[in-house]
Amino acid sequence: MRLRPTPVVAVDIGGTTIKGARVGPAGEILARARVATPVAAGSEAILETLARLCRSLAGRHPVRTVGLGVPGAISPRRGIVHASPNVPCWHDEPLGPRLARRLGLRVRLDNDANLHALGEHWRGAGRGTRNLLLATLGTGVGGGLILDGRVWHGDTGRAGELGHTVVDPHGPTCACGARGCVEAYASATGIVGAWRRAWSVDPDRPRPRDRRILADTAKTIAERARRGDARARAVYEAAGRALGIAVADWIQVLDVRTVLLGGGVAGAFDLLEPAVRRELRSRLFGVDPGTIRLERAALGDDAGILGAARLALGRAAAPPR
Amino acid sequence: MRLRPTPVVAVDIGGTTIKGARVGPAGEILARARVATPVAAGSEAILETLARLCRSLAGRHPVRTVGLGVPGAISPRRGIVHASPNVPCWHDEPLGPRLARRLGLRVRLDNDANLHALGEHWRGAGRGTRNLLLATLGTGVGGGLILDGRVWHGDTGRAGELGHTVVDPHGPTCACGARGCVEAYASATGIVGAWRRAWSVDPDRPRPRDRRILADTAKTIAERARRGDARARAVYEAAGRALGIAVADWIQVLDVRTVLLGGGVAGAFDLLEPAVRRELRSRLFGVDPGTIRLERAALGDDAGILGAARLALGRAAAPPR
Repeated sequence: MRLRPTPVVAVDIGGTTIKGARVGPAGEILARARVATPVAAGSEAILETLARLCRSLAGRHPVRTVGLGVPGAISPRRGIVHASPNVPCWHDEPLGPRLARRLGLRVRLDNDANLHALGEHWRGAGRGTRNLLLATLGTGVGGGLILDGRVWHGDTGRAGELGHTVVDPHGPTCACGARGCVEAYASATGIVGAWRRAWSVDPDRPRPRDRRILADTAKTIAERARRGDARARAVYEAAGRALGIAVADWIQVLDVRTVLLGGGVAGAFDLLEPAVRRELRSRLFGVDPGTIRLERAALGDDAGILGAARLALGRAAAPPR
Repeated sequence: MRLRPTPVVAVDIGGTTIKGARVGPAGEILARARVATPVAAGSEAILETLARLCRSLAGRHPVRTVGLGVPGAISPRRGIVHASPNVPCWHDEPLGPRLARRLGLRVRLDNDANLHALGEHWRGAGRGTRNLLLATLGTGVGGGLILDGRVWHGDTGRAGELGHTVVDPHGPTCACGARGCVEAYASATGIVGAWRRAWSVDPDRPRPRDRRILADTAKTIAERARRGDARARAVYEAAGRALGIAVADWIQVLDVRTVLLGGGVAGAFDLLEPAVRRELRSRLFGVDPGTIRLERAALGDDAGILGAARLALGRAAAPPR
């Protein structure tokens, strides 16, 4: 006898907002809710907020499992959050078991970037592939790997730190302290930094002459590039070239031919893509560049929720279509 | 009823020599044989040479399966060799099925670097790990990945091309045509090139003043370094630094904490290791360098044979111990 598939509750925890949904076995979003993350109030308050959100989404529906996406370093099997830059009160927090006890439901938990990748694999731009790699270009650069249809965690649950692939050891300093990581070029921070340097007289000390330049964001720089601003185009070109070097590395090592770009900066996919492809053509040794599927992630903000739902559903999930 | 485990025939095909062995289920090498690879005589002659070698190794023993390590690009499931730089007569050669028909035995085939990694995982320096990464530092730099105890092939069977990870896009030219791949630093070719450049007046055109310098190999340069030659030490230091950047990339992406160095250049593990570790310490964001097992591969020339045996044995193989 096959059990009747039941909906799950899927939650994506961010540093400012917790987003939740009740999701059916084919990825149908049946209800949504969101609430501010009470970061300053401590881990007990966060747990109670999560529990209330889950209860209200489950309502009287036959929900048995909650899927949870968490920013930071986690142990997926034990449901522990070791550390989270966005939720600093968590230190080796047994979030999965604690929430499960409070709710009387099963809780499955994974890193948010991993679940973005899983969501895209299940219902987004990665449908139909066995393997994919998602790079999320936001304030920093993160990522997730799907190998053989499942999230790849590695030895300690930290796999997919794509942002710190070295592009040029003499390049700009990255938030991690090292030089020339892809994050230092292709994140919003990296793009704004390159833009300011492009306007600066002294390349070591960005001092743009125009205050409007200082107010520019990765998004407004992209708009300038689309309007034909040569400096802005060069900034995105350099970001795309760096990304191309990193993507070529990943493909050579893993032979994963589906690479998705997500996060806010992927909104400038049109500006990045030509340089990425040019770099892939010149660097990929023995790989036909035509076999590479390089696409923008398709699910936007829902990727995390759908990945958490896929995790919670397990075998009850409808296959990708 | 459990079938009585039987020995297998394991073969490692190189561009000059074919090495074979009869191997027991715990990795015992029961007999050995080797023969020159008749590269110039064409694919039919190679096939017949292989078949004779396998028959003589099997003898009257109850062998049912042959494991085959092949240099080049292959489709492991279908047993096809697409192309091999060392055996240029093979173009989409169905080597597995042809040899199986000729012998009346099962034939399993994989890329030689993958089988080196599998051998080290089963009986070498990688015993007891779930995941490992082997970089083979020879004339070029190749590699193999073991993920969850199995060879990782990727989408098209080409995974593990570790040699073309970019270390510095402004670095020396690699055999693949791109600049600054790790192979351009940490292969025997890269080390000899750096040594000649170190003696050259014009860095763009290596023209050593001393003819003995031109005769040096990666091995003699290592001996000079061990005797205290500062230029030779600097060459290995630079190779180690490049390797450290590449290893850091691989660990960040895959979170595989066991990294083995094999191939002839790994004979200078003592000279490479300090710079690799220094680079890992400064680059690995959020990873305790103490959790990384960086070792020299242990099986030497037998890694390929033992990997081929492990492949042939399948579930009949004794577990790693």
